[in-house]
This record gives sequence, structure tokens and C-alpha cells, in this order.
Amino acid sequence: MVGYPNKKSSYETKGISAARRGMTLEHDINDTNKYYLDTDRAAIYKKPTPITIVNVDYKSRETAKITEAYFQVPSTTDYNGVYRGKYIDFEAKETHSRTSMPLSMIHPHQLTHLAKVVKYGGIAFLIVRFAVYDETYYVPAEMFLNKLKELKARSVKYEWFKENCVLIPYNFVTKVNYLNVVDTIIDGGDF
Amino acid sequence: MVGYPNKKSSYETKGISAARRGMTLEHDINDTNKYYLDTDRAAIYKKPTPITIVNVDYKSRETAKITEAYFQVPSTTDYNGVYRGKYIDFEAKETHSRTSMPLSMIHPHQLTHLAKVVKYGGIAFLIVRFAVYDETYYVPAEMFLNKLKELKARSVKYEWFKENCVLIPYNFVTKVNYLNVVDTIIDGGDF
Repeated sequence: MVGYPNKKSSYETKGISAARRGMTLEHDINDTNKYYLDTDRAAIYKKPTPITIVNVDYKSRETAKITEAYFQVPSTTDYNGVYRGKYIDFEAKETHSRTSMPLSMIHPHQLTHLAKVVKYGGIAFLIVRFAVYDETYYVPAEMFLNKLKELKARSVKYEWFKENCVLIPYNFVTKVNYLNVVDTIIDGGDF
Repeated sequence: MVGYPNKKSSYETKGISAARRGMTLEHDINDTNKYYLDTDRAAIYKKPTPITIVNVDYKSRETAKITEAYFQVPSTTDYNGVYRGKYIDFEAKETHSRTSMPLSMIHPHQLTHLAKVVKYGGIAFLIVRFAVYDETYYVPAEMFLNKLKELKARSVKYEWFKENCVLIPYNFVTKVNYLNVVDTIIDGGDF
């Protein structure tokens, strides 16, 4: 029986992890943002998916039905909002790779946008999840953009995130508690 | 011939005004935001229209076609972004009334959102155009929300805007140059 509590605890952790496997990063961030809003901490939202509407059916007065529309290439990131007087802007990416994050996941427009946000004094970052390891990283936009300048490959290695970025802790209510990392940045803490 | 230059100038102003009548406020703000972006001043965007996608046709590989979708009630305002390190957030409304702006134009969710932005230290406002007078006002969110508290009617009178709010000047490149008003606010100028 020696070690049983440890084994049990390890089992439970695995259980939680397995339960989370079905959850996407987007879902976790939306839950976290809702919690931030409900607890009066910040107003940060996911932007709606940009689409081009071609045809709308106005048959009923209440419910206009869009019958033809197409997805647009996004010109900005997915999430933005306000926290402690600061403009917050980020993109979230989840990869199932064990070795690296493919750059094809991010549109060049989004990188240009993040660079602009940094320039205008906003707080810009990426949230990158390696689903296989169940690890979610806070990646400052400036650090990521500098990394891309020296990069030869079309992907950024997992080790780079592990060595340079902050692991965002998980808990049940704030599944991706990224504002705690933002706090250290606003308060002038070393990253 | 006395007064001819004045008459001419007056005629020209009318000409510009007539030419602009077909333009919507949204169009003017989008042009202005593009100009701010191109001249490297600020990154402020209109959010995509929030919709619920029910059905997508993936026939072709490149072009997924949305065949059923519905408009959602917006939970935030239409525009946000970053300028001089500040979070900027606003809603734009154009009325054709000569006497007042109906409150039915603004969704309660949007007022709640503006109040949150003020609380978290962002710069929140409305841009209200009285199309008949060709006048566009910068309306600080806090001032507007306070006005609503004491309001008995379901609309805010034109005179209130005229007496309390800043008229946003028009010119050809920056059609609604609202950031000049924001500048006076950031620099601590009296509104």
C-alpha cells in the first residue's frame, strides 16, 4: 500500500487531463474571459469571425437568415480588450505537434497587427498550447517577432517555448489565467 | 457683386455636404481608421458582425460557403483598438431625426460594456451623427451614461449634444477625426 496516495493523486491528475483533452483552447479562453468579466476584472472578448455576407433572406421580420456568406482572411487577432487601463491583444493557437508550432497557423496580417499593437503601447502576445503535453504558454509578441526574424525553418520548436516563455497555470475557474502573467508585465516584473 | 465670395464659399460648402449625404457614418469612420493605420497613428478596427453559423457547405476546398447563419445581438460596441497606449472603444450611431437620438438605437448590452470600459480605464465614447445637420459629435461614455440616469424620455435631445459634446471636424482624408478629440482627453485638456 505504500505510495497509494501518490498513485491516486497521479491517477486523478491524469483523469483531469483526459477530461480536458476534448476541450479546446478557445473554449478555455472564452471561459476564462467570462470569469474575468463576471468577477469585474477585465473586459476581453473574442472577436466574431469575419465574413462577407452576400445574401440575406428577410422573410420573417424578427429573424433575418443569411443564406450566402464566405469566411474572410482575418486582418487582426482573435481577442482584444481592456485591463488595468491597458489595451490587451492576443492570438491563441493550439497545436497537436510534439516538436514545434508550424508558422502556417498564423496569418502574416496577424503578425503585422501584433507588431503595430506593440508599437502603439498595447500589451500584445500569443497564447500557444501544446495539446500533447497539456502545456499553455504566454508568448510576448515582441519576443516572438524577434524569434521569427532569425528563424530559418517554417516552425518554432517546442523547446524554444519551454525555455523562453511563461507556462500559464490551469485551474478550474480560470482555465488559462493569462492576466496573472500580464500583471507581472504591467508591474514591471522581469519576464 | 458685393458678397459674391461669401456666396461662392457657401455654395461650395453645400456642394460638399450634398456629396457626402450618400456616405454613411460607418463608411466615414472606416475610411478614417484606414487613414490612421496607413499613417501609423493607431490601430482601430470595426469588429465583424456577430453571427451564429448553422450550416457550412464545404464543396470546394478553397471556398467554404456559409448557407445558414443568423445575426446575433452584439454584446459589445462596434469599434475598438489601441492609440497612444490607451484602449479605445466606441459605438457609432447616425440618426435622421431633427430633434433627438432615440435610445432604441443602442442596445443595453452596449451601454453596460461602455460602463465597464470606463471602469477599467479605457477611453470610451459614442460618435453620434445628426445627418440632417451634417454634424458629428464626440460623446464621452461617462457623460452619456450620467445623462441617461436622469432621463425621463426614450431619446436624447439634439440640443443636449450641441451644448455638451464636441463637434468632430470633417476633412477629406480624416472624415471623422475623432482621435484629435481623444488627444485633448489624454493630454488632460478640459472637455
